Amino acid sequence: MTNSDIDGVLAELTRGVEEVIPVEALRARLSLGRPLRIKAGFDPTAPDLHLGHTVLINKLRQFQQFGHQVVFLIGDFTGMIGDPTGKSATRPPLTREDVIRNAQSYREQVFKILDPAKTEVRFNSEWMDKIDAAGMIRLAGQYTVARMLERDDFSKRYANEQSISIHEFLYPLVQGYDSVALQADVELGGTDQKFNLLMGRMLQKNAGQEPQVIMTMPILEGLDGVQKMSKSLGNYIGVSDLPGEMYGKLLSLPDGLIWRYFDLLSFRSLSEIEALKRDVESGRNPQEVKQLLAEEIVTRFHGAELASRAHNSAGNQVGLGEIPENLPDVDVVSEAGGALPIATVLRLAGLVKNGAAAKDVLARGVVYVDAVAVGADYMMRVGQVGVVQAGKKKIARVIVK
Amino acid sequence: MTNSDIDGVLAELTRGVEEVIPVEALRARLSLGRPLRIKAGFDPTAPDLHLGHTVLINKLRQFQQFGHQVVFLIGDFTGMIGDPTGKSATRPPLTREDVIRNAQSYREQVFKILDPAKTEVRFNSEWMDKIDAAGMIRLAGQYTVARMLERDDFSKRYANEQSISIHEFLYPLVQGYDSVALQADVELGGTDQKFNLLMGRMLQKNAGQEPQVIMTMPILEGLDGVQKMSKSLGNYIGVSDLPGEMYGKLLSLPDGLIWRYFDLLSFRSLSEIEALKRDVESGRNPQEVKQLLAEEIVTRFHGAELASRAHNSAGNQVGLGEIPENLPDVDVVSEAGGALPIATVLRLAGLVKNGAAAKDVLARGVVYVDAVAVGADYMMRVGQVGVVQAGKKKIARVIVK
Repeated sequence: MTNSDIDGVLAELTRGVEEVIPVEALRARLSLGRPLRIKAGFDPTAPDLHLGHTVLINKLRQFQQFGHQVVFLIGDFTGMIGDPTGKSATRPPLTREDVIRNAQSYREQVFKILDPAKTEVRFNSEWMDKIDAAGMIRLAGQYTVARMLERDDFSKRYANEQSISIHEFLYPLVQGYDSVALQADVELGGTDQKFNLLMGRMLQKNAGQEPQVIMTMPILEGLDGVQKMSKSLGNYIGVSDLPGEMYGKLLSLPDGLIWRYFDLLSFRSLSEIEALKRDVESGRNPQEVKQLLAEEIVTRFHGAELASRAHNSAGNQVGLGEIPENLPDVDVVSEAGGALPIATVLRLAGLVKNGAAAKDVLARGVVYVDAVAVGADYMMRVGQVGVVQAGKKKIARVIVK
Repeated sequence: MTNSDIDGVLAELTRGVEEVIPVEALRARLSLGRPLRIKAGFDPTAPDLHLGHTVLINKLRQFQQFGHQVVFLIGDFTGMIGDPTGKSATRPPLTREDVIRNAQSYREQVFKILDPAKTEVRFNSEWMDKIDAAGMIRLAGQYTVARMLERDDFSKRYANEQSISIHEFLYPLVQGYDSVALQADVELGGTDQKFNLLMGRMLQKNAGQEPQVIMTMPILEGLDGVQKMSKSLGNYIGVSDLPGEMYGKLLSLPDGLIWRYFDLLSFRSLSEIEALKRDVESGRNPQEVKQLLAEEIVTRFHGAELASRAHNSAGNQVGLGEIPENLPDVDVVSEAGGALPIATVLRLAGLVKNGAAAKDVLARGVVYVDAVAVGADYMMRVGQVGVVQAGKKKIARVIVK
């Protein structure tokens, strides 16, 4: 690559990034002409990703698009220890089976964004299970108590006389050691992970490796535009949200967040986004660009067909609210083996009493599949799984067999 | 045992002890009627014991005399790690061979005091080598940073901004865990070890064991009567000092230290010591009781014969000063296979030129064996090893074969 090519790549890769330490080292690595190893660590607990999490995953994807290798690291080692203080009854140790199940769920969610061919899914138990107590002590010898206490959360807890268990000092060291084991070139994390990412640099240096470049990603605000996106705050868009739900939530985005969301969530190039901004400044309705964003994101997670249906029926949306958890699963059998009209599905699934009642709800426009309004011409194919709703109260997860 | 028997045992066992925590638990354990497991931990580095160290070893012996089992623990696990910060070039990690050699040297020295039949020599690598990183993290989860920083030396270093490596927080936990692994009933240590001894109680409790009783032993002052006995301060009496050297040093003890030394070093009963005190108060020369102490201690380490010779020739002592390190070893062969007169030894060892010169130095009274002056009638037997000196400059370690 020429210098100006590298400048272009750097501009894309640093887009939306909070900090790169050190930028010059990133430039130097990009000039090496080999695929870099881009590490990102994830919790081993059950993943339930929302768009906030995808900010970082999108950045990983960008690296893949420039030919680099993503190392998707699941920190199962510490998760399988649990809380040795015994204080957290709600976080019992994970079993090996939990970890495998959660990893599978991660794959299903992140491979909608990442390229599986350029993604290594790794578990830190691979190397940590082989380290003995002496190795752990040697690792702990590489950092001081005073510097560990400078970490933001530790310093606050210490000052407030809130208890810090000694093992909590070991976890950042384990996380840093993962970079040594993986020979990471670059590590990505949220801004709250900066201390731990720097730990990786230090331990790699001590191990005689070139220290990784670290990149911190900003925390995405939720739909309220104020607090960080979080499931518990209810201001989130889950990557498993139904197409109509996801589309509707994105249309409800406050105008002030539009460009922030484009910047951190859209795969459009910087120049395309600039052009859209100019359009809006020249009087284009912001609602139109929100629709573009919503279509792009629904397509990413549900495909173009459902995205376009979500778009077309967006005007018909009634507030479904949250899809209830633990919906009943209902099998519907296609005797002829072909696709079934939605009226037949409603009847066979017991969501309406008979064919006349099916016609009635369809005529009233209150039938939804995956939170998208459908008409009488809608067919469900064999193998399709969909949340089917007839009016406000009748709802089931239907599997066509 | 009756209650008053236990009172008597308790009085002897707590003699000279700084602290017992908790005393009532010690009484309760002694009433169990089974041999208790009495733990004491020692450095795995080359042991060069002086009387200061024997204060604790004497207390272990007392427990043995009451039927209890001593667990002489060599902390080789941490010694084999070395200093992971790499700051201490002078303390490289010990090898397995170092540890075995040092343990042998410990045995030679401490079995002059302890009963080998009631002593288990153990190494903490036995169980620590089997603990993995996860186990180490679980151990670290049992204590808090704030409480560890309360340890006297840590709190001073932290306040003075002197660096503390995180692994230093792990060592007290390892030492405490040793008590769990050994199921110790009682642990002895110097007063400077109190924090670490208490750690054992805490970890045993967490492990569902009855917490050990801890006993701290005072630090013995050296011959200067001010500073703690230490080889580097030159105010020490080594357990391997030659009989005459040891005897002479003990006679030089300041009068103010006599009862302190009796209390901490003599095996005489409390009532005998009380009687000696009364004698001195009634006008007996303190030098005489110092001689009693010196004879008792030289007997302990060198046997009654050498002790009595040291006593008889004490008046003739010339200041030998320190016996030089790395004395030449000289083999002297008894052709007839019997004991050799000292004049012959001097000649065969090359310490004098001929028989006439031997007679001369003997007549001048400047011949010493093991720092004890000897006359012309002194014989060395086959197998005897002795530091033989003819005047101030001619000195060798002689082995009679």
